[in-house]
Amino acid sequence: MDKILRVNMSDLSTRTEGVPKEWAGLGGRALTSTIVAKEVIPTCHPLGDNNRLVFAPGMLSGTAAANTGRFSAGAKSPLTGTIKESNAGGLAAQQFARLGIKALIIEGLPKEEKWYSLHVNQDGASIAEETELIGKGNFAVVDTLEARLGKKTGVITIGPAGEMRMLSANISVKDSDSKLRSHGRGGLGAVMGSKRIKFISIDDSKAPAVPLFDAEKFKTAARAFAKAVIEHPATGEGLPTYGTAEMVNIVNAAGGLPTRNFTFGQFEKHEEISGETLRETIIARGGKPKHGCQPGCIIQCSQVYHDKDGNYVTSGFEYETIEILGANACIGNLDDIAAADYIMDDIGVDSIETSVAFGVAMEGGVLPFGDGKGVLRILKEDVGAGTPLGRIIGNGAGHVGRTFGVTRVPVVKNQAIPAYDPRSIKGIGITYATSTMGADHTSGYAVGTNLMGVGGGVVDPLKKDGQVELSRHLQIITVMLDTLGLCLFVGFPAADMPTCVPALMDMLNARFGTELTPEWIGGLGVNTLKTERAFNIAAGFTNKDDRLPEFFREPVAPHNAVWDFTDEEIDAFWDF
Amino acid sequence: MDKILRVNMSDLSTRTEGVPKEWAGLGGRALTSTIVAKEVIPTCHPLGDNNRLVFAPGMLSGTAAANTGRFSAGAKSPLTGTIKESNAGGLAAQQFARLGIKALIIEGLPKEEKWYSLHVNQDGASIAEETELIGKGNFAVVDTLEARLGKKTGVITIGPAGEMRMLSANISVKDSDSKLRSHGRGGLGAVMGSKRIKFISIDDSKAPAVPLFDAEKFKTAARAFAKAVIEHPATGEGLPTYGTAEMVNIVNAAGGLPTRNFTFGQFEKHEEISGETLRETIIARGGKPKHGCQPGCIIQCSQVYHDKDGNYVTSGFEYETIEILGANACIGNLDDIAAADYIMDDIGVDSIETSVAFGVAMEGGVLPFGDGKGVLRILKEDVGAGTPLGRIIGNGAGHVGRTFGVTRVPVVKNQAIPAYDPRSIKGIGITYATSTMGADHTSGYAVGTNLMGVGGGVVDPLKKDGQVELSRHLQIITVMLDTLGLCLFVGFPAADMPTCVPALMDMLNARFGTELTPEWIGGLGVNTLKTERAFNIAAGFTNKDDRLPEFFREPVAPHNAVWDFTDEEIDAFWDF
Repeated sequence: MDKILRVNMSDLSTRTEGVPKEWAGLGGRALTSTIVAKEVIPTCHPLGDNNRLVFAPGMLSGTAAANTGRFSAGAKSPLTGTIKESNAGGLAAQQFARLGIKALIIEGLPKEEKWYSLHVNQDGASIAEETELIGKGNFAVVDTLEARLGKKTGVITIGPAGEMRMLSANISVKDSDSKLRSHGRGGLGAVMGSKRIKFISIDDSKAPAVPLFDAEKFKTAARAFAKAVIEHPATGEGLPTYGTAEMVNIVNAAGGLPTRNFTFGQFEKHEEISGETLRETIIARGGKPKHGCQPGCIIQCSQVYHDKDGNYVTSGFEYETIEILGANACIGNLDDIAAADYIMDDIGVDSIETSVAFGVAMEGGVLPFGDGKGVLRILKEDVGAGTPLGRIIGNGAGHVGRTFGVTRVPVVKNQAIPAYDPRSIKGIGITYATSTMGADHTSGYAVGTNLMGVGGGVVDPLKKDGQVELSRHLQIITVMLDTLGLCLFVGFPAADMPTCVPALMDMLNARFGTELTPEWIGGLGVNTLKTERAFNIAAGFTNKDDRLPEFFREPVAPHNAVWDFTDEEIDAFWDF
Repeated sequence: MDKILRVNMSDLSTRTEGVPKEWAGLGGRALTSTIVAKEVIPTCHPLGDNNRLVFAPGMLSGTAAANTGRFSAGAKSPLTGTIKESNAGGLAAQQFARLGIKALIIEGLPKEEKWYSLHVNQDGASIAEETELIGKGNFAVVDTLEARLGKKTGVITIGPAGEMRMLSANISVKDSDSKLRSHGRGGLGAVMGSKRIKFISIDDSKAPAVPLFDAEKFKTAARAFAKAVIEHPATGEGLPTYGTAEMVNIVNAAGGLPTRNFTFGQFEKHEEISGETLRETIIARGGKPKHGCQPGCIIQCSQVYHDKDGNYVTSGFEYETIEILGANACIGNLDDIAAADYIMDDIGVDSIETSVAFGVAMEGGVLPFGDGKGVLRILKEDVGAGTPLGRIIGNGAGHVGRTFGVTRVPVVKNQAIPAYDPRSIKGIGITYATSTMGADHTSGYAVGTNLMGVGGGVVDPLKKDGQVELSRHLQIITVMLDTLGLCLFVGFPAADMPTCVPALMDMLNARFGTELTPEWIGGLGVNTLKTERAFNIAAGFTNKDDRLPEFFREPVAPHNAVWDFTDEEIDAFWDF
């Protein structure tokens, strides 16, 4: 029987509730956003006692279907001040789903300055005081909890950055290698830190399999879905071969590779950080060129990176981090970037926000562009230790810009712009501007259509035509992916393979005994986006916040592209 | 002949323009706000090349009338993101007025990383490169310029904080003692720093007297005005005797003295920082218990503070700084506060913003409450030197709060709340919430009516009744004070002495040959407030920004008062 777990840190109580009817047909992002919109005062301080932190597995999580294990976290973001949903791989979505937990809602703040942990199992949630792991990095948390609770324990954890309530603090989830995947964006780790919860351990050993209304139909649909994923060139070939870093050369060729704090669109050392170089390096050193962020992943776009001596350095080493530290901070050196990636994961900061923050810090004169060793030193000695400089960097790109008086600060709604220049890939610029989450490429990944022809139609990345419509369509579809617990890249076969969406609907209906049609997707997307936007408006946001920073009026080489959308053109996004 | 001086830092050009007809009947704040609203793109980056910095003397500045020497500076504020007018005493208003300069408008940013100065005289403005004084404190700037240009030179200057574009950086103006008065609030020093202007020197030696349309009428009116000021108990007795620090005991008795970062409304050591103690100390040490911020001041609420050995420490030592460092940061020691005041003036930070920032830093664990020596050390070694901690503090209270994850951060529109608790002095709370400038007691000083019966009517400080109407009335009247170049305290006789406003109108009409009536004041106030608010709305502000921080729902001792205005009640402020 599905349930809601509710934890109140003000009186250290927990309870199990039935699922209200209006939440029953939801999961993942649609559910976290619905709960946050209903239960959180939009104008509250995100680190105060009126904010709530919500976790929810996707609707298809816990089943045997491929790539359905994304786990949503939601709250009012301390970074952006907007509503926030950020999803991660790892084990937790599948574990929550098997335990029948539709959502975990954490409210209130403890009265005492103690630290706590939550433990979730078939009986519900319980709270314990925690001392040993306070101040420890995420990897130590996982290792210690496996020693304490057994190898199979699930873990959701924050690092020192979350404890210190840094605005770039993420929430990490243990994966099947006992490494980490993260709810990266929007500083949700600071919300967990404000509630003084260091980690959540999960025991699903006594959980039954996820119930299926029609097991046979589900199996058939899941097979058709997997086939669509495998037969698409991006999810079946490009991503499994080169990982997400395959984008380095593609985006560089398009002139949209943010370089030197978004000053140029191409990086002279792009070959040194490309997906091709990454793959060769990993293979030569005995790492893993393929790896999944979740059990059941058939794309395997992740990988495990080793050093020259063959020792583990990092995993889940993504295009964003590689590009932003590599080209945007001009550190053309995979070893330095990988070492930074590991530290960021351990101290628990979003590697996008933090990497962009370093680019701004370099423009502000804190360290030179290209100083990879400086980045490593500041991450270890400052961010991890919470020195004043560390707190500045750990509070994200906007904070760094304000601190050092930098005017070229690539943020929207105070969240760092990821690794695609919006001037030369204009569709993603519309997503950055209009997303309810602040600048976020994953909320409407127009890069696929702009650069790789996903979706069939041609939308010229350098022209304004069709970009608003493209971003709107993708943002609506993406809600479905984030709600079902699907990997973002399922968006590619969903757009291109005619069998994919019908298979998804069949899986849903076979799982729940519903009769949903593909039209349901549009309604879900529209409703969720409108719910999120209404929260933001009630929090004080206006169309004026749906803007890119002024400096994107500067032309960017090689196309001398500028950000030339009028306010009216951007605002038309919301005409639905 | 009145003129506008326009300086373009992008091409290092200057020019003299005629005064457009629609600006001719304005001065001070009404003029700076009109110019900023017309010429500045509301969504621009305040430190970027689209912001403009405007200086304007009051309409009555330069005449022999008492207390008419306030000088307005305006721009889009980098601290608040709103339009900003901040006015200061000193010599500049009188000098500009005598030179016939209605306004100085500085636009653009230099292309090169050089520093410049402006020189203003009867021929207009000229630009020179500056090297010697870069990095120097404000007092060194004044001393050096007097050596370079003669004792009579006027000076408008920024300290290291302004050079570093810290968001609390002020702009200082030389006074008749060769000390400083400041455009404190809103970080206008950072705007001057962004334009790479270290100082403006003023030579008015060849300026004629300010022309008067009817000299005799002016003289008579000025005499009546001075009489009204001198006969009012506040401006004739209280302020001249104890300075602004007379408020310490009054506000403490009312339970509205912010203490320990706005946790309590009374301070056990209030006697140690009271106006009475200040006066005794100054007299015992041979300082000056009376002093004016401008030539022609007949209130003399300022003073010169000496140390135990009789040596000069600081002047312009105001209630706000004394209260906020004294009670709110729990430093019950006038010597420490005075030493801090001097350093803040020298490095060029707003002593309100910075003092509140220390309270938040103390709550965030950066230093203990009451650590006066720690404040002095951080001011000297960090803020003045621009270390990471110094930049955090120097960017103001909101920035400190975000940096250290503090939730009790007393700011409105990111500007620090001054030294009156809005829960127990509710009228000033409405001013904080609704002012177009961010939290600012000087934009509608309801404390006078709430605590001292100014204006005759009784408006109970602890009740909501009448506060919105009171604040609205005062904000409208204050525009007139800020536009004529009048000291804020003229508001007391203007409210209570029936001869005061007619005398002001007579002075204006005698100066300009106009036929303005007292009704003109209301129209000026309404129009200016609406112009300022329209700018803010175009910049993205909404009613949601007219709110006090969430933590003011906490009751404050001794009255257990809470901030209990509804959104609708606050928003009714704008119903005019």
